[in-house]
Formats: sequence, C-alpha cells, structure tokens
Amino acid sequence: MKRGFGSDNHSGASPEAIEALVRANSEHALAYGDDEVTARLEQLIQTTFGPQAKIYLVFNGTGANVLSIDAMCRSHEAVVCAETAHINVDECGAPQRVVGCRLLTVDTPDGKLTPDLVRTRLHGFGFEHHSQPKAISISQPTELGTLYTLDEIRALAELAHSHGMYLHVDGARLANAAVALGCSFKEMTTDCGVDALSFGGTKNGLLMGESCVLLNPALDVEMKYRRKQMTQLGSKMRFMAAQMECYLESGELRVESGGWRAGSGEWRVESGERRVESGERRAGSGEQAPLWKRNAEHSNRMAQLLRAEVEKVEGVKIMYPVQVNSVFAQLPTDVWHRLQQRYFFYDWDEAADVVRWMCSFDTTEDDIHGFINALKEELCRQ
Amino acid sequence: MKRGFGSDNHSGASPEAIEALVRANSEHALAYGDDEVTARLEQLIQTTFGPQAKIYLVFNGTGANVLSIDAMCRSHEAVVCAETAHINVDECGAPQRVVGCRLLTVDTPDGKLTPDLVRTRLHGFGFEHHSQPKAISISQPTELGTLYTLDEIRALAELAHSHGMYLHVDGARLANAAVALGCSFKEMTTDCGVDALSFGGTKNGLLMGESCVLLNPALDVEMKYRRKQMTQLGSKMRFMAAQMECYLESGELRVESGGWRAGSGEWRVESGERRVESGERRAGSGEQAPLWKRNAEHSNRMAQLLRAEVEKVEGVKIMYPVQVNSVFAQLPTDVWHRLQQRYFFYDWDEAADVVRWMCSFDTTEDDIHGFINALKEELCRQ
Amino acid sequence: MKRGFGSDNHSGASPEAIEALVRANSEHALAYGDDEVTARLEQLIQTTFGPQAKIYLVFNGTGANVLSIDAMCRSHEAVVCAETAHINVDECGAPQRVVGCRLLTVDTPDGKLTPDLVRTRLHGFGFEHHSQPKAISISQPTELGTLYTLDEIRALAELAHSHGMYLHVDGARLANAAVALGCSFKEMTTDCGVDALSFGGTKNGLLMGESCVLLNPALDVEMKYRRKQMTQLGSKMRFMAAQMECYLESGELRVESGGWRAGSGEWRVESGERRVESGERRAGSGEQAPLWKRNAEHSNRMAQLLRAEVEKVEGVKIMYPVQVNSVFAQLPTDVWHRLQQRYFFYDWDEAADVVRWMCSFDTTEDDIHGFINALKEELCRQ
Amino acid sequence: MKRGFGSDNHSGASPEAIEALVRANSEHALAYGDDEVTARLEQLIQTTFGPQAKIYLVFNGTGANVLSIDAMCRSHEAVVCAETAHINVDECGAPQRVVGCRLLTVDTPDGKLTPDLVRTRLHGFGFEHHSQPKAISISQPTELGTLYTLDEIRALAELAHSHGMYLHVDGARLANAAVALGCSFKEMTTDCGVDALSFGGTKNGLLMGESCVLLNPALDVEMKYRRKQMTQLGSKMRFMAAQMECYLESGELRVESGGWRAGSGEWRVESGERRVESGERRAGSGEQAPLWKRNAEHSNRMAQLLRAEVEKVEGVKIMYPVQVNSVFAQLPTDVWHRLQQRYFFYDWDEAADVVRWMCSFDTTEDDIHGFINALKEELCRQ
Repeated sequence: MKRGFGSDNHSGASPEAIEALVRANSEHALAYGDDEVTARLEQLIQTTFGPQAKIYLVFNGTGANVLSIDAMCRSHEAVVCAETAHINVDECGAPQRVVGCRLLTVDTPDGKLTPDLVRTRLHGFGFEHHSQPKAISISQPTELGTLYTLDEIRALAELAHSHGMYLHVDGARLANAAVALGCSFKEMTTDCGVDALSFGGTKNGLLMGESCVLLNPALDVEMKYRRKQMTQLGSKMRFMAAQMECYLESGELRVESGGWRAGSGEWRVESGERRVESGERRAGSGEQAPLWKRNAEHSNRMAQLLRAEVEKVEGVKIMYPVQVNSVFAQLPTDVWHRLQQRYFFYDWDEAADVVRWMCSFDTTEDDIHGFINALKEELCRQ
Repeated sequence: MKRGFGSDNHSGASPEAIEALVRANSEHALAYGDDEVTARLEQLIQTTFGPQAKIYLVFNGTGANVLSIDAMCRSHEAVVCAETAHINVDECGAPQRVVGCRLLTVDTPDGKLTPDLVRTRLHGFGFEHHSQPKAISISQPTELGTLYTLDEIRALAELAHSHGMYLHVDGARLANAAVALGCSFKEMTTDCGVDALSFGGTKNGLLMGESCVLLNPALDVEMKYRRKQMTQLGSKMRFMAAQMECYLESGELRVESGGWRAGSGEWRVESGERRVESGERRAGSGEQAPLWKRNAEHSNRMAQLLRAEVEKVEGVKIMYPVQVNSVFAQLPTDVWHRLQQRYFFYDWDEAADVVRWMCSFDTTEDDIHGFINALKEELCRQ
Repeated sequence: MKRGFGSDNHSGASPEAIEALVRANSEHALAYGDDEVTARLEQLIQTTFGPQAKIYLVFNGTGANVLSIDAMCRSHEAVVCAETAHINVDECGAPQRVVGCRLLTVDTPDGKLTPDLVRTRLHGFGFEHHSQPKAISISQPTELGTLYTLDEIRALAELAHSHGMYLHVDGARLANAAVALGCSFKEMTTDCGVDALSFGGTKNGLLMGESCVLLNPALDVEMKYRRKQMTQLGSKMRFMAAQMECYLESGELRVESGGWRAGSGEWRVESGERRVESGERRAGSGEQAPLWKRNAEHSNRMAQLLRAEVEKVEGVKIMYPVQVNSVFAQLPTDVWHRLQQRYFFYDWDEAADVVRWMCSFDTTEDDIHGFINALKEELCRQ
Repeated sequence: MKRGFGSDNHSGASPEAIEALVRANSEHALAYGDDEVTARLEQLIQTTFGPQAKIYLVFNGTGANVLSIDAMCRSHEAVVCAETAHINVDECGAPQRVVGCRLLTVDTPDGKLTPDLVRTRLHGFGFEHHSQPKAISISQPTELGTLYTLDEIRALAELAHSHGMYLHVDGARLANAAVALGCSFKEMTTDCGVDALSFGGTKNGLLMGESCVLLNPALDVEMKYRRKQMTQLGSKMRFMAAQMECYLESGELRVESGGWRAGSGEWRVESGERRVESGERRAGSGEQAPLWKRNAEHSNRMAQLLRAEVEKVEGVKIMYPVQVNSVFAQLPTDVWHRLQQRYFFYDWDEAADVVRWMCSFDTTEDDIHGFINALKEELCRQ
C-alpha cells in the first residue's frame, strides 16, 4: 500500500511494542489479567494517573468508550457529546446497542463542548419521559484536531459534578494532547476532575493498546463482569498489558534488553542497555522519554511541518488550528481527487471539499516534502 | 508463575506467531481489515473451509460465539446447547446481553448433544410466547474433552436444517479435534453441514487469533456492521490476520525467514529457510505441517501421556474419554489441594472432587513426569 | 383536578369507548388476540388502510413506536427524524434500549422533515463505522401541531424508497391530521407510500387504543414474537380491540345499543338506535361519522376557536400555524405562571416563554371563553 | 367461542372492574400516574403490603416480571428459577432482551424451588466468567398449581438474603394462593421477606391489572425511568389504577354506586349501596370481602369441585395437588382430543397426555357438571 496520511492506525507498531510482546512471551501466566505483567501495569497506571486509578484493558477504542459509558450510565441515562464525537459518529451505534442509552449531541464550531453548549442539553431532570443526562463526554484531542485547555476541562468537570454527572474523556490520542499541552496525563485528567477515560495507544505506535481507566473510584462497580459480558475480556492479557507497560514506562529501562533470535523461537538476553533509536532524551537527565511521548512528539511535529508547508501553498485552506497530529484542509475537488491517487488520505467532508491529513509516529520529513510537491503539482494542473 | 495444567491459554505464543506479527509490521496498511494480510487470509480460509467460507476476525472466543449467534438468531429466537457449553456457562451472559436471545440448555452425560436430546427442546414453533429454536450449538471438542464423530455432527446438522435451524460449532479448540479425528477442518465442518463456526487459535499457540467463520452464505448478511456494533472490529487487523495466516498455512514457507534484531527496531532478512523447530514433517513430502497441526498434535499427545501415566496410579479416576488435550480426574480432596500447591490447575467440580488437567503446545514430557511424581507423593501422604 | 389545556390524554374516555368495553365483556374469548373482536378489527383495518394492512395492537404510543422501529430496523441501522420527534425526545431512550439502534436527528423550523433536511443524514451507506440509515420517521401531526401535506409525505416516501429505506408515521394524533386535511387515513398513509404507522386513539377519546399498523407487507416478519418479547402483548386483547373497533367503525351501528345496569353486572340490550350525542352526522346521509372523526373535528375546532380568541389578545404571540388541536403561544413569564394557577397547561420551552395549550374531545366552548378571560385578567395585572 | 377451561384470562371482566372504569372516567386527570386514583391506590398498596411498599402499574404480566427483574438485576447478573417458571418459558425471552440477564433454571418435581435446589445454582460468585446469581424467582402459585407454604417462602428469602440476593414472587395469581392458604397478601410476601412482587389481577377478573410491587425499598431506584424506557408506562393510568383499587378495597363501599346510562354517555349516581352479587360476606361482619378474594375463592372452589368429580371418574389421573384454580390431568390421547371439540382447554404436555383445566371467576357449577358428563361420555366411547 502506498504511504500516506490516512490514519495514525495505518502505521504498524513501534519496535518497542513488538519487543514488549516478545518479553511477555515466556513461561506460563494466568489468563484474563491475573498475570504479573498486568499487575505491574496496574501499578504503573496508578503512578501515571494517581493512586485511585483503575485500568481495564480492552481490545479497541469502541470497547474503551462503551465500557466507560457503561460505567457511568444505565440505559435510561444519557451522555452529552459533540455531534462530531467518535462515540456518536463512528461506533455504528455500539453505545446504543450495548448500553442502551442515548447520546445527546450538540453542534460545535470546532469539535469542542463548552459549558454553555452542554447546558442546552441539561434539562428534563426528574422527568421520566426524558433520558436523564448523566455524563459529558469530550474527546481530547477532538476529532477535528483541536484541544481543550486544562481550564476548559476543569470547567466541564465542574459543570458535570454540579449536576450529579460524570466527565468522560475519549483519549484515543491522549498522548498527542499531552505533548501539545506540555502536561502530564494526570494533570490533564485526574487533576481536572475527569471521572472516566478511554486511554489508547494503538494510534500512537502500539499493535493493540486500549483501555478504560476509571479515575473516580465510585464508578468502579462490578466492572469486571461488565467488561466480560460486553465481549471485551482478553485471555492472554499479558500481551496487551505488556504493550501498554512499554508505552508508559520511563526512566531507566526496567529489564536488560535482549533479542529475538529469528527462527529460533528464543529470546536472547544481551548485555548492555537497549539502544535508543530516536536519541530523544530529557535534557540533562540521561533518562529516556517514554514511548508515548516520543511517538506523539514526532507525529505532532510532523503535523506542524505539514501545516507550515501547506500554508505556503496558495489555493489550500487550513480549516482548524493544527494542535496535534492532524491537518484539515480545504482544496479544489479535482485536486484532492488526483492527489489521492498518489498519497492515501480520507476526505472528511466531501461536500465541503475538506480532507484530513493525519501524521503518525512513522511519518517522515520526506513523506511531508514529497506530499507537498505532489500537492503543488496537482494544483498547477488545474 | 509455576508451570502447570491450568489452561491452554496460560501458555504464551508459538514463535511462529510472533514472527508473523513482525513480518506484518511493515509500512502502512489500511485499517479494519482492508489490508493485504487480511485479504490473503480470506483466501486461505476459502482454501481451508471451502469457497463459500467467509471469515470475520474478532478478538476473543466470546466475540466469536456472540457474533456467530448474532448471525443465526434474532432476539426472539433461541439456541439449543448443552448445559455445559461455554456459551452457556462461561460468557457471563454475553449472548443474552448482546443478542438478547435465549439459550435452551440440555443436560448431557458427556458434554455432547444428540438428536434425541436436542428434540426435547424443539417445540413451541409458531407459539409467540416461546422463544423460537433457531440454532443448535455444539463445542468440538466439548468442554469435557469429548469429541463428536463426523456422523454425529452430520446428524445434528440434518436435524437443524429439517427444522429451518442452523448448526453452530464452537471451535475454540477445533485443531485438537481435527488432529484427534484425523480429518481436515473442512471435513469436520463444511462437509458435515455446519453453518457457522467459532474458529480459534489462541488456545493453540497464537497470541490472539479468534474468528467467526460463516460456512452458510445465507448467514452472511450485514455482518460487518454487526461485528463493529458489538465492539469486535479491530483497527490494525493485519496483526490478527497475520497470526491466523501463519496458523493455517502449510506447504513451502511463504517468505524468507528473517530475524528480529534486538534493540534495533529492525527486522533482519536472513538467507535460508526458516528453521523448523519440531522436526515434524509429513512423511515423504518435505512439506511442513501447519502450525495448528503441529501444536495440537503435541498437546493431544501430552494428554495421552498424562492419561496413561495417571491410569497407572491407584486412587485416581479418569472421568471422561481422553480424546484431545484435557484430562478430567477424580481424586481425594486433600490430595488435589496439596497438588495445587505444586502445579497449577483448576478444580472442575469441587463438590465431586473432579479436577481438570489441560495440556498445551508447550507442555513437555518433563512436565508430565514431574507432575505424576508429585501426584504419587501426595497420594502417599494421605 | 382543575380543567385545562394540558394534554389530550388528560381527558377521560368517550362514552362510546366504555360501551365498547362493556359489549366486549361477554362470555369467554381466546386471549392474546385470537378472539373475535380482534379478528373483526383486523378486517376493519384492511377496510381502513387497504388490504395489505396488518395491525398489531399494543398498549401505548411508546410500544407502537418501538415496535414500528423494530419492524424497520436492526440495531446497526438508524432512523432519521426531527430533533423534536416524540421518538427522540419523549421515550426515555426506549428505541435505543429495546431496538438498540440510533436516531439521526435533524433540526427543523416547525417540526417537519423535508427531503433536503433528510438528505443531510443520508451518507455513510456501506461504511461499517456508521449506523446505516434505514428509516425516516415523521409525526403527523408533528409535536408542534403542524401538518405534512399529502405531497410532502409522498416526497419523503419516495426519498426513503429510493435509498432502500422505509417511511414511518407516528400517528398518535392521526385523526386530527385527517380531519384537518380532509382526507382519509388511507389517503394520508398507504396511498402516499407510508410503510409503517403508529396509530393511536388514546389522545382522541379511547381509554387505551394504540397500535403498530404495517402497510408494507415486507415488514410483517415475525412481528408477533417481537411484540411479545418487547412486553407489548396483551392478554385480554378483546378489550383493546373493541375500543379501536368502535373508534374506526362508521355507518349503521353494528349492534343494537344497550345499557350497563349499574350494580347489576349486566349489560342490558335495549331496542332502538344508540343515541347520537354530538348530533354530528354527514350531511344528507343519515350515517354517523365514526368516533375518531367526531372527536378530532371537535378538538380541532376548539383549537381554532382558542387561536381566534387568543389572536384578539394583545401581548400573546401564536408560534406555529394552528392546524390541529394545539396552540403554542409566547407570553410573559409571570403571566403564564399565574395563568397556570387557574388552568392546567404545560410550558413547552420555558426559556423562550412558550407554552402549549392542547384541546381535547371534551374541551368545551365554555372552557375556551373562561380561559381567555383568565388570560386577559392576568395580562392586565402586569 | 365455546366455554371451557382454557385459561383464567379467557374470561371477561368482573362487573366491578367495569364500574371502576366508569367511575374513573370523569373530568380531567393528569396522565402517567400523577392522578388522584393512582395516588389512592398507592396508599391502598401500603395498607395491603406494608408502609414500605411501592407499586408500579404496568400493562401485563410480562411487563411486571421484566420490571421486577430489572429492579433486582443488572445484565451481568442472573435469576434462579424453576425450569417451568413463566419468566423462563412463556415470555419469549423478554428478560433476556430487555434486561439482558440470564435465568439459571432448576428442574423441579412440582414447579417449586427449594433451598437445596437453589443452592445447586449458587456458585461462581466473584468469577467474572459467570453471570452472578442475584435473585431467586418463584411463582405463587406455581405454573403447576402448587403452593409454597409461608415457611417455604421464608426459607427461600433467607437463603437469598444470606447471599446478598433478592427474592421475587411472580404473583399473577397471588389471590388464589392467598385464599388457599388463608392468609393475607402481606403475610405471604412482605412478612416472609419477599423483595419484589409481580402482582396481577387480570387472571382474576380485571380487564388489565398488573403491577410490579417493590417491598424492599432498596430496590426502588430510578424505577420510573426504567418502566418508561421498557415501554410500560401508561398514559391514562387512572383507568388501570381504578381497576386495581376496586380489586383490593374492602370494607364499606367507598363511593355511592351509580349506573351507566346506556347510550347517554353519562354515569348516573344512584342512591343506596351497591348491590352485592355473590352474597359472599364475611360471617357476622356486614363487611364485604374485596373483589380479589371473592373471585379467587370462587375459582378455587370450582377447581376443587372439578377435582372431586374427576376423581370419581376412572381412567383419569390427577397429576399434582389441586391447591388453587387449576387441575392437571392425564388421560388417553383420543379422549382429550375429542373432549377439546366440546370444551376449550389446552394440553400441557402433549407427549405425556397431560392437560390443564383452569377454572375462573366466572366458571359455574353447571360448567363443571356439563364437562364431567362430556368427559365420561368420551371415556366410554373408547
């Protein structure tokens, strides 16, 4: 398949994720999360999000979102979200089928809810004919690549809590947001009052790394049964936990690095530290940044490069502030049609000639420059 | 964790499965199954099960079973199954929640349905107060390690079809059954009239390899939406497809083998054929048996060794015919309690002092002999 | 309770409905709709809506709407409707819980969908991440008291059918629409291409008379099971059928009228025709209009009287065209608050000071004049 | 339709129920249960079942059972019940679809659960692969016409509570049980520790009178939304409440009796007391027994008469103790086939030649004697 800017899950996996799988593949381990890797990850999640955090690994973003909604809402309740929210648009109705609840959608200019927008949906409390608003769900970053500031998240959490509601964050790309805002995961979620989080790494270099992280312990009720019954309990969970662990862990490398010996079925322990590919280290610390950070910094930087180059090109309009790893652009129909022959990407709003260019952890500067050249060529052909 | 006979998903993954992941991890690929690996797998499934077969990769056995049931039944319909069936006992009610249908259970002596047993549930057709029987579901092998003969499967398929019903096979361990019966997957399913199959490899050496395979094309209606909506659509599906491909493919090795270079993040192509670990080749053919077969032959053989050794021990009773990779045994309470301190395994029916010993692709003869010694010691201590 | 303009289901039942119950209360009858009254009703429905029509009696409008949606959509599909639609706003999420599908809502100026508005929701066909649009649902009259013309209904049916979709009409007040448009039920539904209808009489003088009427025979698949499983199958159905029968039947009175003898438990057959209360007969025919028509004509006329009187009052703004039996008005907050102390009615949009005044089959001219006087007094008090 | 012994809902309604409807049909009333009749009923339920009792009127027994289960269980939980339970056999899977939970069924000799039988299902607590047992459901009387003693109910309640579970009673025919046991509703439910009750009157002389009565206040959480969302909220609820009120109330008649004036649409108030049809009064009290009691006493008595007469007939075997209003009998196939041509009744177990004869509030001694004669004739014809 030709390279492109289709999606951050068109990329494969970071080598670190594969290595983590290989490391986890030794001896017997209890299934369904009762293994040591998962136990370590549960600790790591508490280090990352605070001591009250509880992770439920699931298979995909749909599972993370539906399990989060299930933790917050019963079927007669409702989630307020942006019309553009992934839970509304891109789950084929999974929340409706699996939880049975309603989504109360709000039109937004930029994919972001505000307290005022949410308030338009906060009525009918106590009236049995209306689904009862019980949660607010935001995507950070949004599906349009925009970001909530910490204050904005805090304000939505306060609004939610003042109505006995919860705040959920769809964090399929939370790493890109954290990098862009220069804050930690905890500062962006727990510290802002977020109650439940869909926390994913698949779009940022893992093979499969998604989870529901409950930050409000009151929500952690019978969740293990709920996850199982909605078909989201994995058997050899260590392989999922190992990826998430390698995604989050920083500091000195925990285990001696080794090597997978091709064709031998053996993992070879080698002396010495794991070679750091990217050369990205925290200044003056000798400590390597965790995988989530290195990957997200890269994809965000590529998106900024793409934006900067596109802005030099006449005839293309950038649609939203470029804050993370996506660029939304408007350009003539025939141009983007021809461009799609050369680079893979999706239209976002065909009627409005808006397309989405998504950068990934493996996007290169060459990809960007090649793409810009192709873009210019196709614009000239008009 | 100490080794043991707890479950065939306590084992890790076969090296071949890891290698398949690594091979699949190159360049960009479309997500959600529109990639080349999945396309190849779809072909391979048709080679394996017949040209009408259609695979839907899912994440786990629960997903495979629920999607299969969803393909066969609407909520007002019902599935006839053994009381001991995994779909009845071990899914925490997933069919009920996700499909909304009933299971009509039948007590069996050995985990196997017979036409006569099924007929006790085939009534109330056309009566709107009763869930309408629409499918028969059997496990091959059963949860008790017993097997249906091909004739028995055929008879159940005929019974089902004569009532406008479907036959589903829960084949989480189908490889063990095929090896034991000396038949192909197709002979055991498609050729017997099976309509839908939960086909899994996770218990036989994959990290995560489960699927719903529809053998009756009439069932293949809007399944892609159903899979997505029940939260079972994977994004980077190539990593799941690659495992299932390596599980099924036989004959000359498709690609040159290479090696994962530790710490380098690179896959190193090496000259020469992939070294065959197990040395198991079909006599006189020079062709290597596929992974599913090698692994299942091994675990079945280990179970036979275990059975043979246990039979020599006085005071332990083998409960069911040992046909695949599990041994159910009855022994004094205190003995199996002490034995569990040394080897991991589960009780099956605590009240009846029946325990389950499950062999796996990575069970060794040393495991068996060590276990038998421990068993004898604990029996002596009484 | 004080009289008022709260809802057309604040009124009791027409005497004819009670009489129908009494008539149906004789001897034994099969339960669950296998009785003679229901059989007669099924015939009458075919006379009313055309020979392909099939009625499923249910208990309430929620049941009628959910059963209709269930007939048209599976859980991965979606219904396009107005944001103000009863199925969206006033069912506490019943379609989501019971059918599991999505509603795709559209903002409208007057509660009415148009083909252009619907088209904004008709995308994503074949894309498994999106719920598949499968039905359009309109309310006739709308929740805002506005009406679709026959041409408008026809255009929506054509749009639906051209996309393989169905058109559903929520006809909880269909009688008011038929009277206002001067057409028959069949002209407004079957003849326009409507596929499924929620047909109710409870708001127009019955105690409990609601149904799902399928006009497209392709939808009539296993509906009896679906109704039962969603808890909407009544046991002594003759009592529901009898009301609907008396609602629809016209012409010469079918049975000799009789009388309920108080305290005696007997129905007394009397000679002579049933006395016609309202004196409304079709000009020159000697034939009495059916109950649905008499009641709806009355409530519509009362609404027109109310509108006319309100228009003479300064300081009150009529919000939508008054086409059936409701009047939406905007007036100062304190005025409608005080007015509510004297007459019962609901606010519709508290923030916008819009209230709803609903007329019923038992609203009298005295009610209207008394209310107008009260309104004037409260306006003067400001 | 010919008379018979098909079902107690083949009968119509008691005159008292119709009168109650007529009385309720005056002036305006708030819909959805906010009316005065429902308020009075809520008081009456507390008088009847104890001050903590809360009634939710629903439309039918399915609704009552499903709402009760919904109050007790979430989808990952399970209800232990007899294999023969109505909730298992006769709801077309409504609990599975609407609540999404499992039923854990137990074979019983006579339709009755015992603590020992229930205990066979009480395992797997805390194990996420198993639905968690959360309720025990019994039918009083059972579907086989047998009765639990108060001690037996108490023992099941204690078992339930000792496991953090609830006890539900399906009381579609609770009146027949109360009459047979000579106890009050409260003694049989609240005082025994019952948590939730499906309480119905439709089979005992009402047109439509079913409800979920919560006796354990801890279960009364957001039930109004749950009832609405599952489609079981009635609009003109006063008509349902009025029936249930007339069913329960005893003592001096609350209102002056009146009469329905045929054809006039008016309810005529008459002086004097309501004439008591049946002449059944509590000895020496001058106080009339409530409708539920009069009707149930009658149908139970008719069943005893039928039993006594059948026992005199050779060739017919009574199958279960006749404790309430049903008689199960075994007789030759051709005999009951021919008998069905003359009297309506259902086979219960066709394979075993067992039929069910159900007596009702309107069964007469003549019905019994005529039926016995017919039975004898058909037996002679063999």
